[in-house]
Amino acid sequence: MPVPTPEPAPDVHPAWLPPEAFRAVGSRHTLVAGDGKLVDTVVGEVERACAGHGGTVRRATDEPGARPADLVLALIPALPEADRRPGDAPDATAASGADLAAVHAAHVDLAAVRAAHVDLAGALGAEGFALARHGQVTVVLADAPAGLLYGLFEVVRLGDTAFGPECPVRVHRPALSRRMLDHWDNVDEHPVMGQVERGYAGGSIFWRDGRPRRDRARVRAYARLLAACGVNAVAVNNVNVHATEARLLTDRLDDVAEIADDLRPYGIRVHLSVTFAAPVVLAGLATADPLDEAVRTWWAETTRRVYARIPDFGGYVVKADSEGQPGPFSYGRDHADGANLLAEALAPYGGVVHWRAFVYNHRQDWRDRSTDRARAAFDHFAPLDGRFRDNVFVQVKHGPMDFQVREPVSPVIAAMPGTRLAVEFQVTQEYTGQQRHVCYLAPWWSEVLRYRPWGEGGRSVADVAADGGDLVAVSNVGDDRFWTGHPLAQANLYAFGRLAWDPALAPEAVLDEWIDLTFDPARSADPEMLRRTLHEVMDDSWRTYERYTAPLGVGFMVRPGHHYGPDVDGYEYTPWGTYHFADRDGVGVDRTRATGTGFTGQYPPPWSQVYESLDRCPDELLLFFHHVPYDHVLHSGSTVIQHIYDTHFAGLAEVIEMSRRWESLAGLVDPAVHARVSERLAEQLRCAQEWCDQINAYFHRKSGVPDVRGRPLH
Amino acid sequence: MPVPTPEPAPDVHPAWLPPEAFRAVGSRHTLVAGDGKLVDTVVGEVERACAGHGGTVRRATDEPGARPADLVLALIPALPEADRRPGDAPDATAASGADLAAVHAAHVDLAAVRAAHVDLAGALGAEGFALARHGQVTVVLADAPAGLLYGLFEVVRLGDTAFGPECPVRVHRPALSRRMLDHWDNVDEHPVMGQVERGYAGGSIFWRDGRPRRDRARVRAYARLLAACGVNAVAVNNVNVHATEARLLTDRLDDVAEIADDLRPYGIRVHLSVTFAAPVVLAGLATADPLDEAVRTWWAETTRRVYARIPDFGGYVVKADSEGQPGPFSYGRDHADGANLLAEALAPYGGVVHWRAFVYNHRQDWRDRSTDRARAAFDHFAPLDGRFRDNVFVQVKHGPMDFQVREPVSPVIAAMPGTRLAVEFQVTQEYTGQQRHVCYLAPWWSEVLRYRPWGEGGRSVADVAADGGDLVAVSNVGDDRFWTGHPLAQANLYAFGRLAWDPALAPEAVLDEWIDLTFDPARSADPEMLRRTLHEVMDDSWRTYERYTAPLGVGFMVRPGHHYGPDVDGYEYTPWGTYHFADRDGVGVDRTRATGTGFTGQYPPPWSQVYESLDRCPDELLLFFHHVPYDHVLHSGSTVIQHIYDTHFAGLAEVIEMSRRWESLAGLVDPAVHARVSERLAEQLRCAQEWCDQINAYFHRKSGVPDVRGRPLH
Repeated sequence: MPVPTPEPAPDVHPAWLPPEAFRAVGSRHTLVAGDGKLVDTVVGEVERACAGHGGTVRRATDEPGARPADLVLALIPALPEADRRPGDAPDATAASGADLAAVHAAHVDLAAVRAAHVDLAGALGAEGFALARHGQVTVVLADAPAGLLYGLFEVVRLGDTAFGPECPVRVHRPALSRRMLDHWDNVDEHPVMGQVERGYAGGSIFWRDGRPRRDRARVRAYARLLAACGVNAVAVNNVNVHATEARLLTDRLDDVAEIADDLRPYGIRVHLSVTFAAPVVLAGLATADPLDEAVRTWWAETTRRVYARIPDFGGYVVKADSEGQPGPFSYGRDHADGANLLAEALAPYGGVVHWRAFVYNHRQDWRDRSTDRARAAFDHFAPLDGRFRDNVFVQVKHGPMDFQVREPVSPVIAAMPGTRLAVEFQVTQEYTGQQRHVCYLAPWWSEVLRYRPWGEGGRSVADVAADGGDLVAVSNVGDDRFWTGHPLAQANLYAFGRLAWDPALAPEAVLDEWIDLTFDPARSADPEMLRRTLHEVMDDSWRTYERYTAPLGVGFMVRPGHHYGPDVDGYEYTPWGTYHFADRDGVGVDRTRATGTGFTGQYPPPWSQVYESLDRCPDELLLFFHHVPYDHVLHSGSTVIQHIYDTHFAGLAEVIEMSRRWESLAGLVDPAVHARVSERLAEQLRCAQEWCDQINAYFHRKSGVPDVRGRPLH
Repeated sequence: MPVPTPEPAPDVHPAWLPPEAFRAVGSRHTLVAGDGKLVDTVVGEVERACAGHGGTVRRATDEPGARPADLVLALIPALPEADRRPGDAPDATAASGADLAAVHAAHVDLAAVRAAHVDLAGALGAEGFALARHGQVTVVLADAPAGLLYGLFEVVRLGDTAFGPECPVRVHRPALSRRMLDHWDNVDEHPVMGQVERGYAGGSIFWRDGRPRRDRARVRAYARLLAACGVNAVAVNNVNVHATEARLLTDRLDDVAEIADDLRPYGIRVHLSVTFAAPVVLAGLATADPLDEAVRTWWAETTRRVYARIPDFGGYVVKADSEGQPGPFSYGRDHADGANLLAEALAPYGGVVHWRAFVYNHRQDWRDRSTDRARAAFDHFAPLDGRFRDNVFVQVKHGPMDFQVREPVSPVIAAMPGTRLAVEFQVTQEYTGQQRHVCYLAPWWSEVLRYRPWGEGGRSVADVAADGGDLVAVSNVGDDRFWTGHPLAQANLYAFGRLAWDPALAPEAVLDEWIDLTFDPARSADPEMLRRTLHEVMDDSWRTYERYTAPLGVGFMVRPGHHYGPDVDGYEYTPWGTYHFADRDGVGVDRTRATGTGFTGQYPPPWSQVYESLDRCPDELLLFFHHVPYDHVLHSGSTVIQHIYDTHFAGLAEVIEMSRRWESLAGLVDPAVHARVSERLAEQLRCAQEWCDQINAYFHRKSGVPDVRGRPLH
C-alpha cells in the first residue's frame, strides 16, 4: 500500500511541487502496474494529486475502472509475458487488459521511434523510463520502480502537454547514475559556523542543537522535491566532522537510519561524512593509519554494523588532510591509501567513498609567490591516478580554487583517466550572494559541464563525469519556510538535479520548467509577462553578480570568515592562498609557466597554450592567469581599469533594473514570495552598491586612473 | 573580628601580593587602633602576613604586648581625645599606652612636616592617610578605616624602607575620589563576544554561563589586589547590557549583592551597567522616555530596592544611544535628560551615574568625508555642559576615537567645565596587543594625564579629572591563572590604580613598585639584572607596539571584529568611521578647519592652532590630523613613507630584542611566569612580523617608493 506522506507545516512553501503542478495528472485516470515500495510511492503521489483535482488511480491488480486510463505507469517486468515482446497481442484476460493494450501499442510505437536501438525491455536501467503516447493514452514504462517515479515527475513537468499530440515521446535515462547533495549540516550548532556551515536558509532540516530534528514531514517533503528534480543521494552531515557528528557512524547511527527511512520512499540513499580519525576518536585505537590491521578491522566491522542497520546505505564522504581535518598524511600515507581503506570496508555492500580532492596548504605565506593554491589538488591527486579502488570517487570542486563566481575548470578533471571522479558544485551561494542575491547558477554550471578540457571535439566535463562518475553539490536548503532563504534560490537546487540528470539541458529551459511548476503561469493574469519577467530577472543574474564583484576571474575580495560583501584586501595578506597582488601598476596572478606558478601547465593542450598566452586567454579569466598593468587592453577593446569601472557600474544598474522588474510582478505571484524576494532585493541592491563603490574606489585609489565617463569613484 | 579571607585556588598567581611582599610587615610587631569592618580587614591582612613571617599584631584594646610595636596603624578618631591634639601628652593609662605615645609623637612630627597645613585630624578625608616615623616606630594615621587600609598597603609597598631612617614621611590623599574599573563581563556567554567582551584572560571572575561564578575566594583575592593599588569601585557587568544582564537590576540583584559582599571588606563599591530601556524590557512599560512620570517612578522605586539590598551601592553605568544600545534619542530627548533621570533616582542614596560619551554614528557612509567620528562626542556633549545633575559623571574615553595606540586627547575634556567628567582608559589591551603582546600602558596614560588642553601653565587632564571627576578603566582581568593572560599585563592594572590615586607618579617608578612587589628582586640571584631587564622589556613596550602597528597616529588598520593583527583596509570601507584614506599619492585624515572636517576647532588654543598647522603638528599625530603625500618630510627629517618602513623594521627588531632579554631571565623568575611570557612573546614576534610586513607591503604596493635601505617590502 502507498506510504502515507505526512504534510509539512502549512506555512512551508511547496517549492516546485505545489498542488497546481499536479493538475494535469490529478484530473485524469491513471493505471499503475507493478509492485515495490517506490511503486507505492508513485501510487501515493497520484492519489494525492487526484484528491485535489478529481482524477482516479487504479493498480493493474485492481478491478478494471469505469473508463480507460489516460495515463499508464507500468513496470515492464510487471507486464504479462506477452506484453513484453513488441508486436505480440496483449493478454486480454489480464486485469485491466483494455488499458494494457494501450501499453502494448505504445510499446510498439516507442520501439519504432527508437528504431535501431536495443529492445526497450532491460535497456532503461535502474532509473530510466520511456514516455510514449498511444491514441488517448500516455504511457510511462520502466524496468525498475525508480524509473516509474522519475517518469511520473516527467509527466508532472509536462502537464497537459503529456496528454496531447505534442507529447515528446522519448527514452529518458540519467547521464549520471549518482546525483548527490552534500549537506554541510552540523548536529551540534557550531559556535562559529552555526547549525549549517555556509547555510543561508535557517537551521538544518535534519538536526537541531545536537539532536535529530525529527520533522519527518519536512524531510519527506524534501525527498519529494529532490526526486522531482532527479537527486538520488544525500550526505546528511557536514564534511567538517566535529565530535558529535563523528558518532553518527556508531552509537548515533539510529539518527541516520531515521533519515534514511524518510528518504527511501523517494529513491534517495543516505551517505555519511565521516572523520578519518574515527578509529582513534570513537574506538580509542592508538592510530588511524590506513595500513594498520586493527584500523582496517575496525572500519570493516563498523561498516558491517552500518549496513546491518541501513541496508541501502550509500557510503562515506571524507574531507581528509584539508583545512585542519585529519587524514592519511598524519601516518605518512597518501590519499589513495586513505580512500582505499574505507572503500575496502564498503565494497562488500556496494557502498562508495567520496574522497574530496580539496587539499591545499591553508597556512601558506602570502609573501611567497611561488606557492599556488590553484595547483594543489592536481599536485596531490594526479600522481595517484589508477591507485584508487573502483568504489572510490575522487570528489573534485569544479574549479581549482573554491566556488568563486568565475574560475577556470579544475585541471584535475582531465588528469585522472583511471579514477572515478565526482565533480562538485556549490548550490549554497557561499561566494555568490548567500541567498540574499538573485544568482541563478545553472548557466555557470552548464558552462563548466560543456567545457572540453581537450579542446573542440574532445570530451566534455559532463562526459568525464558521466563515465562512471558522479555529480555532487553542496545543498542550499534549511528549515526556512521557503527552503532556501531566497525563494528564487530554489531554482538552483532544481537546476542542479536536472543538469545532473541531463547535462545537455539548456539553463533557460530548466528555468522554464521550474517557473511552470512553481508559479503556474498558465493560470496567472498575465502568463507571458510573468514568465518573461522571471527570465529577465534570473537568466543573466549570475553574470550580473560577476559584474559587480571581483573582476576578470581574480576571485575572492570578500570579507574574510563569512565571505559576504566586498573587502578587496580581506584575504590579501592571509595564509589562505587567495591573492590578487594589486599594486599601483597592475593586478592579477601570474600562473603562467613562463614567469609564474606554472599552473597553466596542468591543463592539456589546447588550454595549456590558451591560458598561457596573454593574447589568447579569455577576458573573463585574464586576472586568474596573468598579472597585467591597468592599461592592458582586453579583447573587448577596453582597458582593464576601465573594464573594472564599467562592469561595476553596469552590474549595479542591472540590479536596479532587476528590482524594478520584480516589483512589476506584485499581484502576479504569491504575496509572501513577492515580499521575501523584494526584501532580499533591497539587500542585494545595498550590497551591490557597496561592491561597486568599494571595488572602484580601491582601484581608483591604487591606479590613479580616472573613469573616462567621469563617474564618482571615491 | 577580622573577616577570614578564603584563599584562591593554589595555582592562581598572587600577582603583586605574594607572601614575600608582606615580609617587612609580617616579621614585625603591629598595633592597630580603631574599629570597623575595614579595620578588621587591616588586622586580618597583618595577621596573615605575620603567620608567614613570625611577627605579631595586636589591637589597641588588647592587652599590651611583650614588646613595643614597630608599626602602628591608628584611626585618629579612635585615639584618646588627648592624642588628637598635637602637643598634648598621651594618655598613658590607655591600653597600649606606650605604643600610642609613639603615635602621639609621630603626630606631632608629622604636623611639623606639614608646617602651615591644616591640622591633620579631619584633613585626611575618607581615604587618605599620613605616614610618619618616630624613633623606632612607623605610624600610619587615618581619619577613616579605608585610609588605614591604603596606608597598610603603602607600608607593604615600602617594605623594609618603611621601618628605616629613609621612610618617606608624607600625607597621602588620592587625587581622585573614585578610581573605578569597568568589567565588560557578560553574565551569559555572548555568542560573538564571549564571557568577557574584549577579554583576553579567560572567563569572567564574576559570571559563568548565565550564572554567578561564586568563586568567592577569587573575588576576595581580586579585591585585595585592587585595594593594594588603590581602586575603590567596580562595575560588575558589560556596558553592552543584554537580556540576562538587564535583570541584574531587579530579580537578579542578589547576584550583585554577593559580589558587593566580597568587595566591601576592601573598600570597593559595586556599580551596575544598566540598559536605558530597563522600564520597557524589565517592567513592560510602554516607554523609557526620561520625562515620563511612570518611568521616573519606576527608576525611583527600582533604585530604592537596590539600596535596600546593597546600602553602599555605587551607582549606574550607562552606554546609551551608542553602537545599538537604546537611549534617550528614541524619545526625542537628549543625554542630559537621560542621565538626569537616573541621577534623580540615585541622589537620595548618594549614588552616581556614569554616562558614557561614546556616542557616534556607527553606520556612517565611508564615501562621506565630511562626517568625522572624532568630532562626535564633543558635538553631542559639549552643548549640554551645565545641564547634568551633580551626581552625573560624563564618562569620556581619553581619546576622540577608541583606545588606539596613539590618539590626541579628547577635546571633550576641555569643553565641559560645568560637568563632572570621568576620564576612561582601557586597561584591557583591545587595540594594544590583547595581552599577547607586552605593552606597558602607563607611559601612554601618563602622557594623557599630563597633557594640558589649554597649553603650558594651564590645567592638565589629571587636574580636570581631579576636580570632582573620576578615572575609570576597562578591566583586563579574567579567570586566567595569571589574572590577565599575559603575566606582564598585571602591571597595567596595577599602574592604572596607582595613577588614579596619584597621576603625578612616574610610569617607571610605578613599574618599579610593581616589580618589587611581584618579583621580590631583593631575594633573587641577580637583583640588578632582574630589575633592569624587566624595565628594558617593559618601559618602552608601548612605543615599540606603536612602531610596528598603525603609523603616525592614523589608528586602526586592525582585523575587523576581533581587532587583533593587521588589516590595513579592514575598516577602510566600513560604516565605523575609522579611515586612513591612503591612495597612491598619500595617506591620513584631513581634520583641519581649513580643508578638512574641522575637528581641530574643537580644541582650545594653543592646540587648535598646533594641530591645524602641518608644520607644527606633532609627528606622532600627523596622520590623525592631516592627509599628506608620502614624501612629506617629518620633523624627524624622514619622509612619511621612509618613516613607515623604518619604524616598522625597528619595532620588529625591538620585539626580537625583547624576547632575547626575557629569555635571559630564565632561572630568575617563577618558571610558570617565565614560560607563559615566553609563549606570548613568540606570538608577539609572529604578529609583529605580520604587522611589519603587511604595513610595509601595503604602502610599498600603493606608493611604489622603495626602501632607501633596500630591505624586502613584498
